[in-house]
Amino acid sequence: MKNYKLRELIPEPVLRRLPWYLAYVSMLKDKKVEHVSSTTISRELNVDASQIAKDLSFLNIKGKTRIGYNVVTLERELREFLGFRHSHNAVIFGAGSLGAALMADSGLSRYGLNVVAGFDINPELIGTTISGVPVYSIEELDTRCRRLKAEIGIITVPVDHAQDAADMLISAGVKGLWNFTPVRIRVADGIVIANTSIYAHLAVMYNRLYNLSTDSI
Amino acid sequence: MKNYKLRELIPEPVLRRLPWYLAYVSMLKDKKVEHVSSTTISRELNVDASQIAKDLSFLNIKGKTRIGYNVVTLERELREFLGFRHSHNAVIFGAGSLGAALMADSGLSRYGLNVVAGFDINPELIGTTISGVPVYSIEELDTRCRRLKAEIGIITVPVDHAQDAADMLISAGVKGLWNFTPVRIRVADGIVIANTSIYAHLAVMYNRLYNLSTDSI
Repeated sequence: MKNYKLRELIPEPVLRRLPWYLAYVSMLKDKKVEHVSSTTISRELNVDASQIAKDLSFLNIKGKTRIGYNVVTLERELREFLGFRHSHNAVIFGAGSLGAALMADSGLSRYGLNVVAGFDINPELIGTTISGVPVYSIEELDTRCRRLKAEIGIITVPVDHAQDAADMLISAGVKGLWNFTPVRIRVADGIVIANTSIYAHLAVMYNRLYNLSTDSI
Repeated sequence: MKNYKLRELIPEPVLRRLPWYLAYVSMLKDKKVEHVSSTTISRELNVDASQIAKDLSFLNIKGKTRIGYNVVTLERELREFLGFRHSHNAVIFGAGSLGAALMADSGLSRYGLNVVAGFDINPELIGTTISGVPVYSIEELDTRCRRLKAEIGIITVPVDHAQDAADMLISAGVKGLWNFTPVRIRVADGIVIANTSIYAHLAVMYNRLYNLSTDSI
């Protein structure tokens, strides 16, 4: 792995914009486009060109005057920088509908997430495999996580079990939690949490839809 | 529907915190707890108590001194306010792994999202039903969306089809787009977009994990 400015904590807004650039240059790569300027990216993605240059300066990559960035290089460097080229072992706590959905989502592996096991308390699920991922009993969490070298725990349990699931995952050696519940999980320092509360996004959309329609904007 | 301060555009950070309170009071409701103070919510969710009082002031609900909020009322009012008690018809554009996953997620209906149809170009999927949701050809999008009164279009297609999918959904009368691709979709004024780029969350987590482990915080 190359040595980028890795000791620096990249600001979250930058980390959230970089995947936009990656999605766009991946498309260009598929279309065999060779170079792209920050002006073009700016126009296509509706992000300020100077912002793009600043964001990309976190990577050790420079565009050439008048030619722009080499598409293949930019795509590779973005993927590397974002951690998508490395494989991170993850387990899913809660193999219900959302958990099973994530096991079935082959997209995750393209972004470096390797789901190695699922855990549940439901005896009908234990011992089965969902989209190739084995589902074990919660009682095996500790042993399995350590043996599988799980770095990331994905939490897809009902809200009243979210904190317990987090505590159990952390005590099984997991360092990062991807929390899909709307619960605010509390963890000790040193544990990373990413919250993806998809239902909260729905609330924002409903509110915006309702207001826009009554105000006829 | 009661007349809240509905013409006011609720700030997004407030709309994102309200589901946390809802998740917490739903839990209390299940445990038959009758009242809860903002101090308790504050301690449990790690949000400033004055912030909670301010957020809840958007709803027409007041806590009683020394007793706090009535749990049943607060739960109902939050659900109502967030739009979760009403049914919003949605279609899914792209019945691949993530699309199928969302069709299977019964959680969405509890948050007011009624997935009435899926659309795909894959002849093997067209004509089937996934978790009870019928999958139609893209060619039927316009007719079906109008007949089904679809308000929301969920975009779960590969990145190079995201903008096309959005354009087709909008011309089929959809007013809100829930975009699960990392593509920055451009739409006309009056169309609401919610972006849930789950892969961007992964990038943030990888970066934080890597930094935390090298710096041994």
